[in-house]
This record gives sequence, C-alpha cells and structure tokens, in this order.
Amino acid sequence: METLESGDGAPFESIGDWATRAADPGYRAAVLDLLGALAYGELSAFERLADDAKFAPGITEKAALARMASAEYQHYQLLHDRLAEVGADPTEVMTPFVEALENFHRLTAPSDWLEGLVKAYVGDAIATDFYREVAVRLDDDTRELVLRVMSDTGHAEFAVDRVRQAIEEDPRVGGRLALWGRRLMGEALSQAQRVVAERDALSNLLVGGAEVHGFDLVEVGKMFNRITEAHTRRMAALGLAS
Amino acid sequence: METLESGDGAPFESIGDWATRAADPGYRAAVLDLLGALAYGELSAFERLADDAKFAPGITEKAALARMASAEYQHYQLLHDRLAEVGADPTEVMTPFVEALENFHRLTAPSDWLEGLVKAYVGDAIATDFYREVAVRLDDDTRELVLRVMSDTGHAEFAVDRVRQAIEEDPRVGGRLALWGRRLMGEALSQAQRVVAERDALSNLLVGGAEVHGFDLVEVGKMFNRITEAHTRRMAALGLAS
Repeated sequence: METLESGDGAPFESIGDWATRAADPGYRAAVLDLLGALAYGELSAFERLADDAKFAPGITEKAALARMASAEYQHYQLLHDRLAEVGADPTEVMTPFVEALENFHRLTAPSDWLEGLVKAYVGDAIATDFYREVAVRLDDDTRELVLRVMSDTGHAEFAVDRVRQAIEEDPRVGGRLALWGRRLMGEALSQAQRVVAERDALSNLLVGGAEVHGFDLVEVGKMFNRITEAHTRRMAALGLAS
Repeated sequence: METLESGDGAPFESIGDWATRAADPGYRAAVLDLLGALAYGELSAFERLADDAKFAPGITEKAALARMASAEYQHYQLLHDRLAEVGADPTEVMTPFVEALENFHRLTAPSDWLEGLVKAYVGDAIATDFYREVAVRLDDDTRELVLRVMSDTGHAEFAVDRVRQAIEEDPRVGGRLALWGRRLMGEALSQAQRVVAERDALSNLLVGGAEVHGFDLVEVGKMFNRITEAHTRRMAALGLAS
C-alpha cells in the first residue's frame, strides 16, 4: 500500500478501528453519509458510462467503456455490502445524494465520443483524488475499504491517447474539449458544495477528521482547491488549457 | 457439472480437445463464428441492460440491472480473451454479427420497466438454452468455456417476482406483456435465422456437430423449435400466455 498523507501534507495517523469509532453517533453518521455518497456515485457512474458507450466508434472502444462501467458496478457492490454489514439500509443511506449526482450527470451529458472520453477520464481522476483526501481521515476498516475501491480505478487512462490523437489531427478539438473540461469541473464543484452545505457530519469528516466538530468552510475550500489544482495539471498534460 | 445431453436427448460424447479439432479449418471457422456471435451478444446485452436501468423505479432495481449488465460484460471478457488466445482478432470475428444483434435490440427496445424486466428474463433464459444446445457439439476446451459462461447466468430470476406482482395488481398488464414476450421471441428467431442463412460453418456446427458437412435446414428448425417451446413454458410460468 502506498504511503498515505493528508492533502495538506500532514502525516497519517490511525484514529482506531470502526468498532471503536462508531460508538460516536456523529462519526457513524458521517461515515454512512460518505459510503452512501460514494455508492450512489459509483452506481450513477456505471449508468452514465454505459450510456456513453453508444458514442463508441467501434467494438474495441465500446468494450473499453463497458469495462470501466463494470468496474464502477463492482465498487458499488463493495460499498453497498459494507453498508449492509454495519446494519445500515443502503437505499436509505444513498437517497440524500441521488439528486446532486443525477443533476451532475444531467448537466454534463456528453454530446459525442470525445466528450464522453474526457468525462470518463476526469471523473475517474477526481474520484481517485477524493478517495485519497478522505482515506486519511477514516477509521482503519473504512479506510481499507476506500483504498480497495481506489486501487481499482485508473481504467480511464486509455482515454488519454485517444484524446491527444484527436487534438493532433484537429487542433480546434482542443479548444472545445478544454471548455468541456472546465464545465465538468465547475458542475462537479457546484454539486459538491451543495452536498457539503446540506450534510454537516460528512463535511466535518472530510475537512477535519473525526475530532473536529465545528464546520470549517475554509478547510472545505482548501480541499476543493487541491482537487481543482490536480484537475488543472491533468488537463494541461492532456493538451487542454483549463 | 450437470449431466449433458444434446437437445434431442442423444447421449453426450467428447469429440476431442481444441488442439485436435482446430486442425480442421471448417471446425476452427465455425467455433470462431460461435465465440464471435456470443461475445458481441454479451457486449450488446451489457449495453441494453445498462440502458434499461433508466426505467428502474428505485435504487435497488437500478442496481439489479447494473449487476446483470456487469455479469454480461464479464462473459464478454472471457469470450474475447479466448478469441485472442487462439490467435483470432476479436473485433474481426465479432463484426459479422453486429448488425443482427443491433437490429434485434433496436426492434425490441423496451418502453418501460416491466418490458425491460421481461426482456432481461427472456434474453437470459434463451441464452442459457442456446449455450446448453451448443455445448454438446463442441471440443472439450470450447465446451468448458461455454459452460463457464452459462453457469453464471440466471441473474434475471429477480425479474419473475416483479412481473408476477405487477400482473396481480393489474391483470391487463399480463395481456400487454404476453404480446411483448411473443414479439421478443419473434425478433430473436428472425435475426437468428438470418445469421444461420449467412454463416454455413456455424450452422453446421449448431445442428450436426463437427462431423456434419451438409447444411440441414430441418435440424436448424428443430433446434429453434426446442428453444421456442422452452420459452413458451417459461412465459406460462410467468403468468403470460405466449
């Protein structure tokens, strides 16, 4: 397992296991929120990736999107089973996040194959960043689950070559996709901020760990900034100014 | 493994392994055709099941379709890898079957959740019937693969309860879905017959085993009849006159 550190570079320290921490109802509620958001995120990612397969120019490309979608479903299954294991009702726990995720996907439905590829790549990368940010703030058992789900992302790397090649063939494509990348990040942040504003326990966990009980808007902003900066670097590497 | 017998009750007898049989170019071509048709069938089933998830009335139902779609993708992967392993180009081998499968799905796009459920159940069952018919005619290695893919079907059983319940609540639903079931089977047979007419080697393998070299329309008809009869029994069990 890779060395963990929190997003701001602080060293990683275990806060104990699930059984110990979950005795605190605030912590339990926050982790259920987190797992619910991740689970519905994976299920909706499955649905949208599978839907984007309709744009695939050939069988190989269709199969590549199907593989990614299938991996998202496996993640969903892991998160769902964990929720059931700790005595939560998975559907109930996911429900508060349905609207934000459906809004995100509705507002960022790709209109062609390249937009679909960029969305798959950006979505996969943001998910990995987010898993990394949050893993250090979790009890050992939940962290292990989150890292297990994270270790299986990165399926979207195949998109990079295809997008680069399309830009080389027609540089105007780069301008359009750069705009698309900004819109994806903008909508993701907008929906995330809405969720953060509505789910106090989850927000506290994300920014301060289990010990912090005051809502800290500055810390939330910093986390979003770190994820945005990583996105910007990735877009540049892809040949897209963001 | 369950006891195998051919569809007409003849006892099962091994015809040897892949290495031995594939020396015959006709046999090799027929098995590549078969695996290509099955592989694209799984990939297109993935895509359509995932698409039908949009009709799901709730998260549980959406996840159930996603699980089925994901299983279809895993089957695709197995068949694809086997094609590559025996030195075939998977895309090339699948291409002759794209049109028939896309036609089938285009002509049988469900218009609501219940039609989607019936299609998932019927499709899964027909696939199992077909795997069973064909398994006995194959070399040991190909048969093992086909049985492995088959053993992982049956995900659509969850559909049965939902459909029965919907018919109990509103018997008129039964009439509409019975018509739908007939249409599914009709379109499946129509596309299958087209494939059979175009692919001689595959057709010979399906009806007569590796040894038969004359095209036997009567045997093709018998196989389709056995699958249709099984479909009729299933529809009746579901409360649908077919």
